[in-house]
Amino acid sequence: MASEFELIARHFTPAAPGPDAGVPLGVGDDCALLAPRPGRQLAVSVDTSVANVHFPAAAPADAIGYRALAVSLSDLAAMGAEPRWCLMALALEHNDEAWLAQFARGFHALCEASKTALVGGDVTRGQLSIGVTVMGEVAAGEALTRAGARPGDTLAVTGSLGGGAGGLALWQRGERDLGHPLLARYLKPTPRLAAGMALRGLAHAAIDVSDGLLADLEHVLAASGVGARLEPEALPLANGLREALGEEAAYRAALCGGDDYELLVSLPGERLDEARRRLAEQGLALTPIGTVSAEPGVKGVDIGGAHGWQHFPGGEP
Amino acid sequence: MASEFELIARHFTPAAPGPDAGVPLGVGDDCALLAPRPGRQLAVSVDTSVANVHFPAAAPADAIGYRALAVSLSDLAAMGAEPRWCLMALALEHNDEAWLAQFARGFHALCEASKTALVGGDVTRGQLSIGVTVMGEVAAGEALTRAGARPGDTLAVTGSLGGGAGGLALWQRGERDLGHPLLARYLKPTPRLAAGMALRGLAHAAIDVSDGLLADLEHVLAASGVGARLEPEALPLANGLREALGEEAAYRAALCGGDDYELLVSLPGERLDEARRRLAEQGLALTPIGTVSAEPGVKGVDIGGAHGWQHFPGGEP
Repeated sequence: MASEFELIARHFTPAAPGPDAGVPLGVGDDCALLAPRPGRQLAVSVDTSVANVHFPAAAPADAIGYRALAVSLSDLAAMGAEPRWCLMALALEHNDEAWLAQFARGFHALCEASKTALVGGDVTRGQLSIGVTVMGEVAAGEALTRAGARPGDTLAVTGSLGGGAGGLALWQRGERDLGHPLLARYLKPTPRLAAGMALRGLAHAAIDVSDGLLADLEHVLAASGVGARLEPEALPLANGLREALGEEAAYRAALCGGDDYELLVSLPGERLDEARRRLAEQGLALTPIGTVSAEPGVKGVDIGGAHGWQHFPGGEP
Repeated sequence: MASEFELIARHFTPAAPGPDAGVPLGVGDDCALLAPRPGRQLAVSVDTSVANVHFPAAAPADAIGYRALAVSLSDLAAMGAEPRWCLMALALEHNDEAWLAQFARGFHALCEASKTALVGGDVTRGQLSIGVTVMGEVAAGEALTRAGARPGDTLAVTGSLGGGAGGLALWQRGERDLGHPLLARYLKPTPRLAAGMALRGLAHAAIDVSDGLLADLEHVLAASGVGARLEPEALPLANGLREALGEEAAYRAALCGGDDYELLVSLPGERLDEARRRLAEQGLALTPIGTVSAEPGVKGVDIGGAHGWQHFPGGEP
């Protein structure tokens, strides 16, 4: 059986980063050394994906690797930051070489697609989980934050909603074909990095939809000190969601389901066309779903008190 | 029971960082925003501490929090980097408020002592583990790395060796008083940050002693393409180690025990006095323990093939 050092060397030492990667010293020393570009701020975040909490342990290993990075990159997307580097803390119950090779393939594939250099990590024994720290860059003063939504702003979301929850429901019913678009949405979400960067200078506020549209909207409203009115009939439901879940559950998935990793933005109505044009160039829709109001609270939806998904639900023993 | 968001807010939202902390936006958004200083490189590393693998789950919660940060900061020390920021990924089996408050106290205490701003993190449900990403700064070209040891160099270690393994042995025998210096060495190690910074410009190579002196020495030798002769009688054994373990086990602990978080450096003999003078100002010893040679391999020790500690020992099922 390979040792920890061999494991790391075999699967997680990527090809030496290119000269543009800003990595004077990569994997293999006590630290990596990175060269941030002058005039930029660093956007940093960490997200941990735990087996059978955040993803099914039986999912394909490449999807698990891809997804763990995607959910962290989604936080960079929400800030409008350009991804640069990541570190991975992997906990494994077993040392299964084939699984690990497939996991690494999925992780590296998204590193490559998003131009994110893996610059360090560690492997420990324990319940399967993947903690990914991402680092991106954004010019000082240009980052999108949760604060900044103003009364009168239009609320809009990229892509479609409910696909994450719909895919999870399909998985739980036994669907295993990642060719199914909802399952792919759940297991291999696309972080909206290019969209986040394109929305800089247009949006007043942004967040990624990870906990559920309503829960994430409430984070924006709280940070901005405002309220909102939603138009539920305007929500862009994921393709096939109604058919898979039925009308009511589809709306509930779109409002509360989480795991969509779309961007929710608040922007002045007069900038909507320009924002839609920029995202259309990426083949991505931007759909207005409501407006920001001065009065606190969310109007226009009645979902019986249901909120976004949390790891430690209130009231649970 | 508090939700994840409340948990994070209550215990891990530190006081707003001061103007010197380089944190334009701290905890609470999708990412933190950091302002690296011009002309510096970033040194980054992640280390995960898993209960009953890296530390006893029954250790005092403040020591667990302190230790998890210390082992990550030790990697910055080994690069000669100045600590700036950290992120924490915490997995918890139970939501025990009192434990969490004590854990956070230990973590924050070392943040403060080391001037490291906690800028983000997440909390998930799972087997108790703490992944800490640290970020530090070092002027371009000044970082200490594992490569660079040259034949003729003196090998030297800060502080004393074997205390980590000695403390673990005491813990396993039932000792619970953190007033015992060996137990304190194991549960609340001191990352040698000031020493690492003081050794910049003097040492050719450096590493922190986390896996055991021999194992870590071998990393330096491999990275530098050299060998070494050790003088085992010169090893600075931790106070009380012989009494606690006996002569032979004490030497084995110093050579192979790990968890000491001292620095092992390779430097030209003529710089040793200056290096010792700088560290003496910090109240820290620097002890020569051998020399670097051109022939590969380690001479001068016979420890029956024992090597540093690994999470997945070779040959284990």
